[in-house]
Amino acid sequence: MGRTVLSMSVSLDGFAAGPDVSPEQPMGRGGERLHEWLFQADGDRAVAADGVTPVGVDAAQVRERHATTGAVVIGQRTFDVGVDLWQDTPFPVPCFVVTREARDPLTMKSGVFTFVDDGLHSTLRQARHAAGDQSVLVMGGPTIGRQFVKAGLVDEIHLQLVPVLLGAGTRLFDDLGTDHVELERTAVIESPHVTHLRYHVPK
Amino acid sequence: MGRTVLSMSVSLDGFAAGPDVSPEQPMGRGGERLHEWLFQADGDRAVAADGVTPVGVDAAQVRERHATTGAVVIGQRTFDVGVDLWQDTPFPVPCFVVTREARDPLTMKSGVFTFVDDGLHSTLRQARHAAGDQSVLVMGGPTIGRQFVKAGLVDEIHLQLVPVLLGAGTRLFDDLGTDHVELERTAVIESPHVTHLRYHVPK
Repeated sequence: MGRTVLSMSVSLDGFAAGPDVSPEQPMGRGGERLHEWLFQADGDRAVAADGVTPVGVDAAQVRERHATTGAVVIGQRTFDVGVDLWQDTPFPVPCFVVTREARDPLTMKSGVFTFVDDGLHSTLRQARHAAGDQSVLVMGGPTIGRQFVKAGLVDEIHLQLVPVLLGAGTRLFDDLGTDHVELERTAVIESPHVTHLRYHVPK
Repeated sequence: MGRTVLSMSVSLDGFAAGPDVSPEQPMGRGGERLHEWLFQADGDRAVAADGVTPVGVDAAQVRERHATTGAVVIGQRTFDVGVDLWQDTPFPVPCFVVTREARDPLTMKSGVFTFVDDGLHSTLRQARHAAGDQSVLVMGGPTIGRQFVKAGLVDEIHLQLVPVLLGAGTRLFDDLGTDHVELERTAVIESPHVTHLRYHVPK
């Protein structure tokens, strides 16, 4: 069975979005700084001998995520602020939205949004079924991400640690309770723009 | 002139101490987890050909810090909860305590505690003078650490990122305001127990 992976870009002070998230500023005020590495990686990337495949650490990380992701989970808020931006599903795979209101599936160019109104476990079950042997990517927002961690539903945490103190916004890890969650660091990958950190969450 | 270095061990969720810090539990409830790497490094370290010098990544980091630190700055609370534990200054160098009450210097075996009651800038000025070409180490607690960052007085931030979600306690980076502080990552050093991250704070 595939793994469930929480992947998020966070500032050194732990914020995964700036303040005042809205459709106009989906990453919150100043929060787009957290995703600059994606575009910097695109901007200054060289290409391999085939003239197409980008080389570089960040590009390789993005490529690997695309290759291994079989389904995506997002929260209602991320859907609301992201759908106009993406004009599609965020990845070309089935996408499950944790929501409180039943709603018919929404078919986009590259995949279908399925809205699940009976909780995290049900959402993950459906996403896992869709993903098969591939990973389920819990991609946001931070509130949904931490709920999955708190519920013990995440196998791996992948952070892209951005070298900035954002000062305000929404933290990824907050209100987790006082039980320690021990992690196993499985990879540290440096790029010029971020530090990729990977952790396994032992069950 | 030497640099001013904030160095602290933090959990992946950003806590530098557990809840309820007191002389009985100077790192707060469960917070001693953050310093386990120091003792693990001691416990499983091998020694070099001289039969004395510990080898290993963590030991090398600790040794380097000792070799480069010319003065230490701590907060009153860290002094209060730490002095009985250390039975000395925390490093064998002059140690400056940010405090609100004037108090005579306290001479210990390896150094002198000087209590500075007129603010961060004055404390740092005295520490810098004592350190000469060596570094001033701002070693805690988290509240003092972040005050130095917020005041723009820190040249480098060294974190020992511990693979645990602590869930509660005192964060290192909190209430920093909404201005972004861009950092330059200067080193990433993996040990089996923690990830050493170093950042330069451009002026």
